[in-house]
Amino acid sequence: MINDISSPVLEQQFKHASVRAYSDEPIKPELLQTLIRAGQAAATSSFIQAYSVVRVTRPEARMAIAAAAGGQAWIEQAAEFLVYCADLRRIDGACRRTGKGELEGWTEHGIQAVVDVALLAQNVLLAAESVGLGGVFIGGIRNDPQVVADQLKLPELVTPVFGMCLGWPAQHNPVKPRMPVEMILHTDEYHDVSDEEMAGYDATMADYYLSRGSNVKLSDWSSAAANAIQGKKREHLLGFLQGRGFFKR
Amino acid sequence: MINDISSPVLEQQFKHASVRAYSDEPIKPELLQTLIRAGQAAATSSFIQAYSVVRVTRPEARMAIAAAAGGQAWIEQAAEFLVYCADLRRIDGACRRTGKGELEGWTEHGIQAVVDVALLAQNVLLAAESVGLGGVFIGGIRNDPQVVADQLKLPELVTPVFGMCLGWPAQHNPVKPRMPVEMILHTDEYHDVSDEEMAGYDATMADYYLSRGSNVKLSDWSSAAANAIQGKKREHLLGFLQGRGFFKR
Repeated sequence: MINDISSPVLEQQFKHASVRAYSDEPIKPELLQTLIRAGQAAATSSFIQAYSVVRVTRPEARMAIAAAAGGQAWIEQAAEFLVYCADLRRIDGACRRTGKGELEGWTEHGIQAVVDVALLAQNVLLAAESVGLGGVFIGGIRNDPQVVADQLKLPELVTPVFGMCLGWPAQHNPVKPRMPVEMILHTDEYHDVSDEEMAGYDATMADYYLSRGSNVKLSDWSSAAANAIQGKKREHLLGFLQGRGFFKR
Repeated sequence: MINDISSPVLEQQFKHASVRAYSDEPIKPELLQTLIRAGQAAATSSFIQAYSVVRVTRPEARMAIAAAAGGQAWIEQAAEFLVYCADLRRIDGACRRTGKGELEGWTEHGIQAVVDVALLAQNVLLAAESVGLGGVFIGGIRNDPQVVADQLKLPELVTPVFGMCLGWPAQHNPVKPRMPVEMILHTDEYHDVSDEEMAGYDATMADYYLSRGSNVKLSDWSSAAANAIQGKKREHLLGFLQGRGFFKR
């Protein structure tokens, strides 16, 4: 593919684009199970497997979560909507059973669980894409994570991190140009991006957004990304996470 | 593979096992670049691409980090040792350039960056495995992340999350049995694991550890996992992250 190095995995990875429009065809339960098992096959920190996935089928729950996520209709329409949770509950139980005491909300354990569930989810999405499905991550569930926790009856030590819609694609999007690898790959010492590199990538993305007919306000990467991140501070998040037993100290 | 559902991606995912022993053969720079690009092809929250990867080639840096990580010799021996960083620096620059103000250490932005870099890294490892390489995540760099930040001259708004060794395998490990999917997949409402499920999985892992001749103290999943998590509280982590501009509020 690039420099003649390729594999079916690499080819699949380079084709990734989020899909938000799906046919009405369901995903067979055994296929969904296989995808989640493929997710579990990813590495997990110290083998703690600090994750849970909640499949949301109730229309009322889908509707409430879609509204909380800012009106993302595909949450209601997708064949499957999954909520990926950092889950320290099983390991806390293991600590208690084995006389190791309870967990105490250390940030390290929160990071372990968030990374664990992200590794799992990336495997799930790539696996899904490899059998012809499409999907999209839904960070918007963090807009009002209490709604998600209430709808799914999430207990203490379990917290939603992101959602994912999956379905048979009714739409195919082009791959968005990523930053040149030199901008994110460093050797031995971190180097700041030069003004020229940044301007070059902004120009690439300006062309891309123009070709997609996007809102002119999102005129390049710097504008679009700055707009997105400052528009989503989710100021409640630390308090919410601490209330669930994460990132307390 | 399972229920006759398969793809080359699924087959690769189900083969994953960490590899910590490597031949002396290097990884060609163009292959490494391709792997990192495959990582970048993963989804990124609001397209912020909040990650950096630092390739560590200096033997002194490898040695210092291996020592800080608790004496993991494979950090020194692997063909490549990569440090995966949550990186809000480029996006902070974009915010300043576009008059959106600076970032303020919101937890949301830290979660976005940690998830972003984890998605990237999972793609890199799977891509590496798909061309015959092996590797292992190194959470141990969080034992003393200041050593890592100093060695790699990481600036503010860039923080190391985990490392990864990559090389041509001199060893192949069996796949560890994961929890039965029913233990981590829920429908509509979270359900706690039953005592029977937990005992069944503990028995599976006890057989596995026995077959591997592991330390008898790690007699089942509950004991091994509880031991691991309570032995790694990394009580400095929240302060360290806050010092770098993450998880401040």
